[in-house]
Amino acid sequence: MNTLHQSFNVHFTYDVFFSDRLFDPTNSTLVDFLKNRHSEGFRKKLLFILDEGVTTSHPDLLEQIKAYFAPVSSVDMVPDLIVIPGGEGSKNDPALVDQLIDAIDRYGIDRHSYVVAIGGGSVLDLVGYVAAISHRGIRHIRIPTTVLSQNDSGIGVKNGVNYRGKKNFLGSFAPPTAVFNDSEFLKTLDDRDWRAGISEAIKVALIKDQPFFEWLETNAEKLAARDLDAMQYLIHRCAELHLNHIASGDPFEMGSSRPLDFGHWSAHKLEQLTDFEIRHGEAVAIGIALDSLYSQRLGWLSEADTNRILNLERTLGFSLFHPALDGDGVLKGLNEFREHLGGQLTIMLLKAIGKGVEVHEMDTELIREVIGILKENEIQPA
Amino acid sequence: MNTLHQSFNVHFTYDVFFSDRLFDPTNSTLVDFLKNRHSEGFRKKLLFILDEGVTTSHPDLLEQIKAYFAPVSSVDMVPDLIVIPGGEGSKNDPALVDQLIDAIDRYGIDRHSYVVAIGGGSVLDLVGYVAAISHRGIRHIRIPTTVLSQNDSGIGVKNGVNYRGKKNFLGSFAPPTAVFNDSEFLKTLDDRDWRAGISEAIKVALIKDQPFFEWLETNAEKLAARDLDAMQYLIHRCAELHLNHIASGDPFEMGSSRPLDFGHWSAHKLEQLTDFEIRHGEAVAIGIALDSLYSQRLGWLSEADTNRILNLERTLGFSLFHPALDGDGVLKGLNEFREHLGGQLTIMLLKAIGKGVEVHEMDTELIREVIGILKENEIQPA
Repeated sequence: MNTLHQSFNVHFTYDVFFSDRLFDPTNSTLVDFLKNRHSEGFRKKLLFILDEGVTTSHPDLLEQIKAYFAPVSSVDMVPDLIVIPGGEGSKNDPALVDQLIDAIDRYGIDRHSYVVAIGGGSVLDLVGYVAAISHRGIRHIRIPTTVLSQNDSGIGVKNGVNYRGKKNFLGSFAPPTAVFNDSEFLKTLDDRDWRAGISEAIKVALIKDQPFFEWLETNAEKLAARDLDAMQYLIHRCAELHLNHIASGDPFEMGSSRPLDFGHWSAHKLEQLTDFEIRHGEAVAIGIALDSLYSQRLGWLSEADTNRILNLERTLGFSLFHPALDGDGVLKGLNEFREHLGGQLTIMLLKAIGKGVEVHEMDTELIREVIGILKENEIQPA
Repeated sequence: MNTLHQSFNVHFTYDVFFSDRLFDPTNSTLVDFLKNRHSEGFRKKLLFILDEGVTTSHPDLLEQIKAYFAPVSSVDMVPDLIVIPGGEGSKNDPALVDQLIDAIDRYGIDRHSYVVAIGGGSVLDLVGYVAAISHRGIRHIRIPTTVLSQNDSGIGVKNGVNYRGKKNFLGSFAPPTAVFNDSEFLKTLDDRDWRAGISEAIKVALIKDQPFFEWLETNAEKLAARDLDAMQYLIHRCAELHLNHIASGDPFEMGSSRPLDFGHWSAHKLEQLTDFEIRHGEAVAIGIALDSLYSQRLGWLSEADTNRILNLERTLGFSLFHPALDGDGVLKGLNEFREHLGGQLTIMLLKAIGKGVEVHEMDTELIREVIGILKENEIQPA
């Protein structure tokens, strides 16, 4: 009996909006979006889930949201806005997953309703996961509140939670229904979170966009001094590059190439080695320095370009060394990354600023040498 | 700052193979498939998860699988084959989800490895769910062992588990890597399971394919007498119609139309009302009878065609009434289905044999009347 062949495409589309004070009564961005999606005969509900870090920094936010939706008749906002702890810890807690699934059940959130997450990358990852597995996927709106989530994780297609300490062991690929980047939230970030998200912009510039790298060099001092206009441009351009990469490549990562993981093999391990004391973006800044120096030692990247990269990171205030790099802990990360990829290593390195290239082997002696240089530089900055 | 628009397609493809004695040493279907997918540098693992009902009926199966893979070097079979309870109960047990996630973790099953599920629809749904959420989606091979899973659920793109008694509350859309339908497993089905899966073929014929309905009428007695060739044709044609429907429509059900749910609104509720004592296919047979009679009462379906449908079901041995239809329990299912669809009801009914049409309202008095007819016919069969 002949074999049956199945073949189809699924189309995914979503918009990333840029706004300011999303819940100001005069800002119609969000409500216009919902009105445009209104369909006769369907009562759509809206369940808000917020990052405690955000509600602490914006104590009036819950009331603002309620007031914003009070006159809106096209959707039914669930009056119980749910506040959960943020940060990596929220992805380690299975009870939070259960709490959110229970809320979706209790409030009757169906496949035509929306779950709206407001918070940093961890809360978005957690809520996105819960939305993706409930009723085989509920519509999910993301309102990222950090630089990292507005320019990278929050606008992409992944979600996930940790399982027994294993980062993102459980998760899925599930594009959001829409993303709303609100610059107001950036103002209350602490300096570490403001800075950390910039490393993903450096990363994507280094592998894809030399002019953007030059813009970063030109604007490094403004960014370090918390210039909001410069940061908004950075986020917009970084998000654009990220979205283009997803759309033009392998959105659900069915192959094994992961170019956006430049600088990340060591960063993931550093986060784990420091028990997440170091933030993701801080670890990525170190990972970028490490892989750039490594690319130079291979003779691929000029010394001048390597120094431009290290200097940009220093100007932005990043530390390029962490004591957890001592010993061979981070080298274990290379093996774990190899295993994670199914046995064959694929690592992005640099041929030039704006031009990445993939390799399948890394020389551990050379890595140790590069770590030594980073350590030495840290003690006596160049 | 201008809005960014994201838009991309994800391509999904998989084959449904038809074979006999898949693990016979001379049958290379499965091993050829794996060899063709072998890629240099990757060690792919194979984790088997089996339905206890299947290993009970086929006590040599575990040893056969081990012997089949002993000489195969292109994949690493995990020597610990996992056997779990089957049936709807397996989808109610969160401990089984944890047990399978732990196995994926313990045996290092990565995104290039395969999880192979052998069993009925419930085990396939459960294993498919675990595979879909682990590492954001592990490659998943399905070997369905019942008529229902070989012609319907096992070849489609859905998975899921129940949550606090709510059917398929957790789940996702995740196409399998491949499906292998092995007719050997059909021989050991009990009569109820053999018969139950036929109702999905009647359903798809009624809404899409008049010649297939006529084939079912012609072959009803053979099917009732457990003719394996007739059943293999039925499964192949039903699977083909099902796959075409998925590919040409809305594979991940982003809209609200669900034509394949013909006869299902009452069937889902009947399953729940009988605490799953009635099997899914048996409930669907009743649901088809109910919605066909309802279509006739609307003046859409001729009395002759309605009788053909009821007679086909009776010839196959289905009961067309269940005491749980008494009272208004099943009418509550209509409201639950409306809620599930987001407030607007969409129900498939029949204009003719082979031609479905959707309605957005159903008359509860007429439903009660039709249930009365089914009850009367049951006492004095026509």
